[in-house]
Amino acid sequence: MYVALAGGVGAARFLRGLVRVVPAAAVTVVVNTADDDVFHGLHVSPDLDTVTYTLAGAEHPEQGWGLDGETFTTVDALARYGRPTWFRLGDRDLATHLYRSERLAEGASLSTVTDEIAEAWGVVPRLLPMTDDPISTRITITRHDGTSEEVAMQEWFVHRRAEPPVSAVRFEGSDDATAAPGVLEALETAETILVCPSNPVISIGPILAVPGVRDVLIRRRDRVVGVSPIIAGRTVKGPADRLMAGLGLDVSCVGVARAYSEFCSALVIDAGDAHRGPDVEATGVRAVVADTLMTDARVAAALARHTLDAVA
Amino acid sequence: MYVALAGGVGAARFLRGLVRVVPAAAVTVVVNTADDDVFHGLHVSPDLDTVTYTLAGAEHPEQGWGLDGETFTTVDALARYGRPTWFRLGDRDLATHLYRSERLAEGASLSTVTDEIAEAWGVVPRLLPMTDDPISTRITITRHDGTSEEVAMQEWFVHRRAEPPVSAVRFEGSDDATAAPGVLEALETAETILVCPSNPVISIGPILAVPGVRDVLIRRRDRVVGVSPIIAGRTVKGPADRLMAGLGLDVSCVGVARAYSEFCSALVIDAGDAHRGPDVEATGVRAVVADTLMTDARVAAALARHTLDAVA
Repeated sequence: MYVALAGGVGAARFLRGLVRVVPAAAVTVVVNTADDDVFHGLHVSPDLDTVTYTLAGAEHPEQGWGLDGETFTTVDALARYGRPTWFRLGDRDLATHLYRSERLAEGASLSTVTDEIAEAWGVVPRLLPMTDDPISTRITITRHDGTSEEVAMQEWFVHRRAEPPVSAVRFEGSDDATAAPGVLEALETAETILVCPSNPVISIGPILAVPGVRDVLIRRRDRVVGVSPIIAGRTVKGPADRLMAGLGLDVSCVGVARAYSEFCSALVIDAGDAHRGPDVEATGVRAVVADTLMTDARVAAALARHTLDAVA
Repeated sequence: MYVALAGGVGAARFLRGLVRVVPAAAVTVVVNTADDDVFHGLHVSPDLDTVTYTLAGAEHPEQGWGLDGETFTTVDALARYGRPTWFRLGDRDLATHLYRSERLAEGASLSTVTDEIAEAWGVVPRLLPMTDDPISTRITITRHDGTSEEVAMQEWFVHRRAEPPVSAVRFEGSDDATAAPGVLEALETAETILVCPSNPVISIGPILAVPGVRDVLIRRRDRVVGVSPIIAGRTVKGPADRLMAGLGLDVSCVGVARAYSEFCSALVIDAGDAHRGPDVEATGVRAVVADTLMTDARVAAALARHTLDAVA
């Protein structure tokens, strides 16, 4: 059994490759939920939805998040009521949030609802939220006037376009959270644990902050392999580079290796970063070079194969 | 000041005429909320929305409820999750329910939210829900096998197409409800109180069931005038005829007069029912004959003029 720790778009594309090289039913995905937020009273789980829609082949092909061919009638209509509409919830996507919110209000756990949604989309891998408890990524940003402010992830990333410099990140609620049913068991028994090419700080970070997760990863370090989301000092998508820089981390595959070295025995780095291999290995993590820019599912499958082989 | 008691489509069309013959700002509308229901976790107020959208000129011209040019992307997408989609919430309409539900969850009263929504649509008359408390119309129907069952209004009317025979109606919660702020005051001070051409049983009935409303109407009977929603023994829209028949009421303007005689001094009946005038007057209610089939706003305005004149 293969367990993947996943954030949003990068992870989803990687997983689409993974299920082409191993049986989909043998894959368990532990997904970040610290970017979950409430919009218009509805519980939105951005990473769970991105992974679900992508594994269902229904994702928007360019932007990576949301559904292909989506319309935005309802969110545009909310503008009449003076509601903020910067978080672009599509009309079909909205059905997912309505369903999730209603089920949660009925008392169902996020795990249960995640499973129901995945089944409705015909997704075969097992999707687990990292926790059923609320954990929220809080980002301290510096305003133009030099004062600081703490905001939620979507507020910084979507509303403010990741422009304000970041000085700190914390995962509110993580101390009191419990790993969702099946998460620790899956990590304990996995043949291989894959850390998807996701944001090390705010996608993988919150999963590691769930009590028990980091411990089992450290214990099983020789079975854990990561994929660097940083290629030539930049992210393909998302704000990992700006975040890492703000926090004083080295924005490179070496910085990723350093962040993961405690629990990760190998890291897949991009062919363009091959010259950084020795620096990665200096952190105690074996460097494996592969093409990590997942331009299509075929490349993603090859990357998944290389990643699995790294700890085979 | 003019106060109108209103249900859905018939009332909305009548009000569209009323605001052409008196200043819109002088009109207060007390709207039935006993058909309010929760769909997909959202608070839906069918009659408030029908009145709001119609006064804003945004209603679907033929069906009377919902918005013109509406799409149904979200509700269709909910089918994937096995959710019932027989209550056709349009995509733009959904924004209203999202806004209302979020505001109610924030602790705002239905009165406050109703006012905010009306303002957002540029509606000038004052719209008041009959109460801020939950009142729910419960309809006892007879099943094919002869057993009975109690269901909500939309379940009977929309889902079951008003087909099962009705044997009883009650307004759950009415004993404990309080009239919304301004309702009793408006009724006390109104120059004229108009009972719109709405369903006497389940649109006007719940308003009368709000403690205090019937009493003030009885006391001000000479200022109260109704419009029969029944023309030649049938309703123009909606299930008033089937409901009245099921409850043993005379499905005619005479039956309406009898139901209203305690608090209504005059009733406008359709020209086609002119021969029933003496029967209406036998109930103690003065009969006023007019064209009540509101084929357009001009006819509705003439009807409103006749209605006001009836108790001038």
